Amino acid sequence: MQKQLNLKFSICNFQFAIIPLFLCVMVCAAHADEGMWLFTNPPEKILKERYDFTPTPQWLLHVRQSSVRFNAGGSGSFVSADGLVMTNHHVGADALQKFSSQQHDYLKEGFYAKTRDEELKCADQELNVLVSIEDVTDKINAAVPPGSDMAAAEKARRAAMNTIEKESMDKTGLRSDVITLYQGGEYHLYRYKKYTDVRLVFAPEQDIAFFGGDPDNFEYPRFDLDICFFRVYEDGKPAKIKNYLKWSPAWPKDGELVFVSGHPGRTDRLDTLAHIEFIRDRAMPDLLNRLRRREVLLLTYSQRSAENTRRAKDDLFTVQNSRKARLGMLAGLQDPVVMESRRADEQALRQVVMNDPKLKQACGDAWKIVEDSLKVWDSIYTDLDVLERSPIFQSQLFNIARTLVRLADETAKPNADRLREYRESNLDSLKLQLFADTPIYKDLETLVLADYLSYYLEKAGGDSELAKQMLAGMSPQERAVGLVQGTQLEDVEFRKKLADGGQRAIESSSDPMIQFARLIDGPAREVRKKYEQQVEEPQRQAYAKIANARFALYGTNVYPDATFTLRLSFGMIKGYTEAGESIPPWTTMGGIYERAEEHNNRPPFALPQRWLERKERLNLDAPFNFVFTADIIGGNSGSPVINRDAELVGTIFDGNLPSLVWDFVFSDEQGRAIAVHANSIIEALQKIYDAPALADELLQGRLSPLRAPRSGRGEGQGEGK
Amino acid sequence: MQKQLNLKFSICNFQFAIIPLFLCVMVCAAHADEGMWLFTNPPEKILKERYDFTPTPQWLLHVRQSSVRFNAGGSGSFVSADGLVMTNHHVGADALQKFSSQQHDYLKEGFYAKTRDEELKCADQELNVLVSIEDVTDKINAAVPPGSDMAAAEKARRAAMNTIEKESMDKTGLRSDVITLYQGGEYHLYRYKKYTDVRLVFAPEQDIAFFGGDPDNFEYPRFDLDICFFRVYEDGKPAKIKNYLKWSPAWPKDGELVFVSGHPGRTDRLDTLAHIEFIRDRAMPDLLNRLRRREVLLLTYSQRSAENTRRAKDDLFTVQNSRKARLGMLAGLQDPVVMESRRADEQALRQVVMNDPKLKQACGDAWKIVEDSLKVWDSIYTDLDVLERSPIFQSQLFNIARTLVRLADETAKPNADRLREYRESNLDSLKLQLFADTPIYKDLETLVLADYLSYYLEKAGGDSELAKQMLAGMSPQERAVGLVQGTQLEDVEFRKKLADGGQRAIESSSDPMIQFARLIDGPAREVRKKYEQQVEEPQRQAYAKIANARFALYGTNVYPDATFTLRLSFGMIKGYTEAGESIPPWTTMGGIYERAEEHNNRPPFALPQRWLERKERLNLDAPFNFVFTADIIGGNSGSPVINRDAELVGTIFDGNLPSLVWDFVFSDEQGRAIAVHANSIIEALQKIYDAPALADELLQGRLSPLRAPRSGRGEGQGEGK
Repeated sequence: MQKQLNLKFSICNFQFAIIPLFLCVMVCAAHADEGMWLFTNPPEKILKERYDFTPTPQWLLHVRQSSVRFNAGGSGSFVSADGLVMTNHHVGADALQKFSSQQHDYLKEGFYAKTRDEELKCADQELNVLVSIEDVTDKINAAVPPGSDMAAAEKARRAAMNTIEKESMDKTGLRSDVITLYQGGEYHLYRYKKYTDVRLVFAPEQDIAFFGGDPDNFEYPRFDLDICFFRVYEDGKPAKIKNYLKWSPAWPKDGELVFVSGHPGRTDRLDTLAHIEFIRDRAMPDLLNRLRRREVLLLTYSQRSAENTRRAKDDLFTVQNSRKARLGMLAGLQDPVVMESRRADEQALRQVVMNDPKLKQACGDAWKIVEDSLKVWDSIYTDLDVLERSPIFQSQLFNIARTLVRLADETAKPNADRLREYRESNLDSLKLQLFADTPIYKDLETLVLADYLSYYLEKAGGDSELAKQMLAGMSPQERAVGLVQGTQLEDVEFRKKLADGGQRAIESSSDPMIQFARLIDGPAREVRKKYEQQVEEPQRQAYAKIANARFALYGTNVYPDATFTLRLSFGMIKGYTEAGESIPPWTTMGGIYERAEEHNNRPPFALPQRWLERKERLNLDAPFNFVFTADIIGGNSGSPVINRDAELVGTIFDGNLPSLVWDFVFSDEQGRAIAVHANSIIEALQKIYDAPALADELLQGRLSPLRAPRSGRGEGQGEGK
Repeated sequence: MQKQLNLKFSICNFQFAIIPLFLCVMVCAAHADEGMWLFTNPPEKILKERYDFTPTPQWLLHVRQSSVRFNAGGSGSFVSADGLVMTNHHVGADALQKFSSQQHDYLKEGFYAKTRDEELKCADQELNVLVSIEDVTDKINAAVPPGSDMAAAEKARRAAMNTIEKESMDKTGLRSDVITLYQGGEYHLYRYKKYTDVRLVFAPEQDIAFFGGDPDNFEYPRFDLDICFFRVYEDGKPAKIKNYLKWSPAWPKDGELVFVSGHPGRTDRLDTLAHIEFIRDRAMPDLLNRLRRREVLLLTYSQRSAENTRRAKDDLFTVQNSRKARLGMLAGLQDPVVMESRRADEQALRQVVMNDPKLKQACGDAWKIVEDSLKVWDSIYTDLDVLERSPIFQSQLFNIARTLVRLADETAKPNADRLREYRESNLDSLKLQLFADTPIYKDLETLVLADYLSYYLEKAGGDSELAKQMLAGMSPQERAVGLVQGTQLEDVEFRKKLADGGQRAIESSSDPMIQFARLIDGPAREVRKKYEQQVEEPQRQAYAKIANARFALYGTNVYPDATFTLRLSFGMIKGYTEAGESIPPWTTMGGIYERAEEHNNRPPFALPQRWLERKERLNLDAPFNFVFTADIIGGNSGSPVINRDAELVGTIFDGNLPSLVWDFVFSDEQGRAIAVHANSIIEALQKIYDAPALADELLQGRLSPLRAPRSGRGEGQGEGK
């Protein structure tokens, strides 16, 4: 599951999150520090006018190449010449969970590799650095013959994307992704340098990384040391990194200009009003029901024992975080003021289009096309969701089975014809996941799969033929037990053998999970095809028209919706006012002790023992977390926050409550990004965690001699080799 | 909300809950210890044949009049001549919650009135004892003229019920309820002696009453002291009770015959297959979504502080208990074996009916009528649920407002025409609730109401006119804040003034919650009317036909579905086999220490301090909880378990996992009722709780001199007078 940024919000306080009426969506970003800008189209004019700052090409290149994408979901940055990467604890949590066992719970206890040979190699981490950008809009559109019907257009477009990526990868050796921008208005080819030897260096205890837990999630003021360090290796040695961010020694200043270079996951600011209403009335309530269902399932599982709690910990965090973020988004959509602002924006744009004969001819029907596509989507919503899209409702074992089944079928086809995720240029990344030897817990798998079967029965009704076939005459629970006990897919070698055997091996396999995945695959592909041809493709075409109208009217002063690709945001360090109370722009390290005391140091407000013991060592006035006006969203987690000199001043880990509506409209009236301040990181490493070598590496920008391998073994023989 | 019996079940273990194929629904109860029998039609033949026991009329009368109904949901029994009533802790929890404050958390700490003047008077408890039973089927049916359309029939039937009850109350002074049995096959008039001066005597800590929490809920083996004692008063003195249950001194015996006299809430065993499928595919998934939604809402609220945890505790328990029970019921319905057994039963009955010309003529169309009524229900399901039926989604303040609005409108009509709950004979009970001065927490009210508004928006869609009117241009959160802050309904005197003022006071009230309740009342009444006329009335008529067919074919050897009225069940103390493992029929008091240790004494397996300190005093071999084969369901909580001599041997508090399907089909292959053994109660009172006076009262059947008012004040001057 893609991990999206914590945007932290409490229902109770939401009365304060009133959005001003004059919201203006993207076409007039000059109102606020708005925008997730492409590095190829930075907001130069706004920065010059408002902050008297002009990013040079060198500045942009340096920042871009210092920025890291965690392919599983999340952002980060290089912070030393020796491959050290900083991100959030909750981005690293997936790896921490996978390293853990009944003996060592690294999520709970934290982790620190005192010397370099103690750094732990991750089984399935892939990090990407954006190396080059090429506009391929014309190539993609030229591949779709005029007058094609939607099915042909979708096929041709997919073929063009798969082919361009393959050619690029063959030519450059780089990961190559065609990115859809402006919902179909432009297509860019992004080439990434890829790191797959990624090792865990440091993580604090979850109690301090996520201090305040769900109650404080998406809230501010905050006191979280939400950080995690990895190191990328090449050829068994720490990778040599040219572009990395230097550490700023300064404390924050009120009004200081800062930038965020990261990978916002998804926004819906350019969607039509009908599309937003569909999200409000259909998609979001449905997703929230599923999240709550999973939350209750995992909570009841966790309560049964300490070991269960450990096994489900990261999944539970992810689900709860997502539930709270989405509750906030839905609250925004259910606010008549927000919807009215979207309605006004759309009406204004449509008015201009309709009054211009050329634009009307070119784009006038776009809104209707989107509306019609939503009707199709509505009619297939449940099947698409349950059979094809809901990885959170599926088990790891099921996902492995489905991937193996499809890998065999898809790789038997020419590259151009394949489903996107099985395109030639993506197979290495896909196999990194598929063959990773990470823990699989059969009790949890059974629970999740039984719940999935029950959910499908509820949705399809007990008389559904497919539901009956899925159950094979058993109850959901019995069936899940049979599938999980019967499969051998937890064995990586077994998976590899099946993958090597291609379609013949899959078809003749007696593994019950493979057979189960095959049973669902036909109907799942069917509904996906309908979605791609009758929803996605019409929407791409319609949104391309709307984007072109915007370009014609507003020039390039438009940024695309977030797509989990690199963007530049900007803003200033600045507090805000809430219910008449002035919220200061940063908290101090001393503040966390007061907050813990308010709650008698009880979970989720319990400080780790060493924080209690070492309080006296800390500079309690040092800044801890801070807020600023830059435009971010889920996926930005772990993004570096930098100053004018491109020095690192913090790492993003959250947005506050009023920022949750940013999925749909931006306002910096109260909405704020939240970051851990760089200074508190050094303070904690030096004084709480006895990690002077790591602090030293951050301050010096290179490996400290203190971190030399203790064993005296040479390079390339570290853990995991 | 009606509190229903804990039926405790874990998804993980449900593979073992396989129901044998030869299930037989109610028409052939001789297969098992099945049946929730009417006291007017006890299963004499079965008892004689299987257990060589014949209950005498005196035995039946004594047991019936020793049985107590907690009107808010739950069962109990008289256990002394001085009005002492025993029930479950979770039945008493509502009162414990209402007595608690930030200073005293009686749910957590427990409660013991050492002397009688410390007994705490409940604000809104009503206890009922069934005094007489009269068959009024002919009267009710005669009131409906042949050939009436459904609307007229519904009106006439309701009028007849309201009128019979009023006449009976006027004549006898007793609470008088017309009960619908066999889904409309029979109507009985039940007259109850009513106690409204109910005082709290003893409750243990929730940690021991609900030891094992949600993980162990609906599971067995168990170790719960799930008990609570109240005392009923008349004229300020402990009520003098002729029929109460004597305490059995004996330990349990394997195979021992026992009876349960209690108030099972609801079963669906006589529903048609189509009706059951409707529950499986529509009603149950919908309810479960709502329960999970509320569970997550309350959990997030509770996590914010210790005081929040206290405020939401009983609500959270109720929701979690319901969620676990209903998950088990749904799992049963989703088991093809269970549904096949229901299908086979229905086919057999329909076959016989269709082969008998007279029966065919009289009852042949019944199944089709039910099916048609379900289509109507489906079409109004959401509105009925959200606007009219879902108290769990409404706030206390909203419920008060609705009751006041309707009270004014309904009492302006003749008794015969009123909605059932506003009939003359029910007004005292209704006002007891309406004017009770129980705690209302405005933060929790706001949370719940905002969630309700958001839920309605989700269900109705953002374009719904009613939704817009509900919001009055605000977001759900803002609107909820306005309603809760603006209303004065937390003031009981204000409520009384409004009630006294009748329709004029309501119509001219500027209280925002009253206005809000009035806004919804029209649409809510509309959809209720449609339900009563087009779903409920046709079903009553159709089920009457099916019941008559059953009577014709099987005689009186048929018991009606549960209706939260008094029933007699029977069975034997008996273990069972699960996954090849033999589960013994009772646990011991020593067992709880082992279970706590397995979980390092961590919640929900943490023993209260005094249980840890006083372990050595206990007879660790004494029986704690035990299982037996009697037929029970939610609502039976707190029912006395008695032996042949009508002596008390325990109190029911749960059913095990395989019993959850009993809502639809009974099987005692593995399904068991679970009770606290009488012996462990005495053991705990004497050795853990320093309550020898209470133990003495149980053993002697009368107030112990030890419990004389400490203050020396005379009778009638106790707490609460």
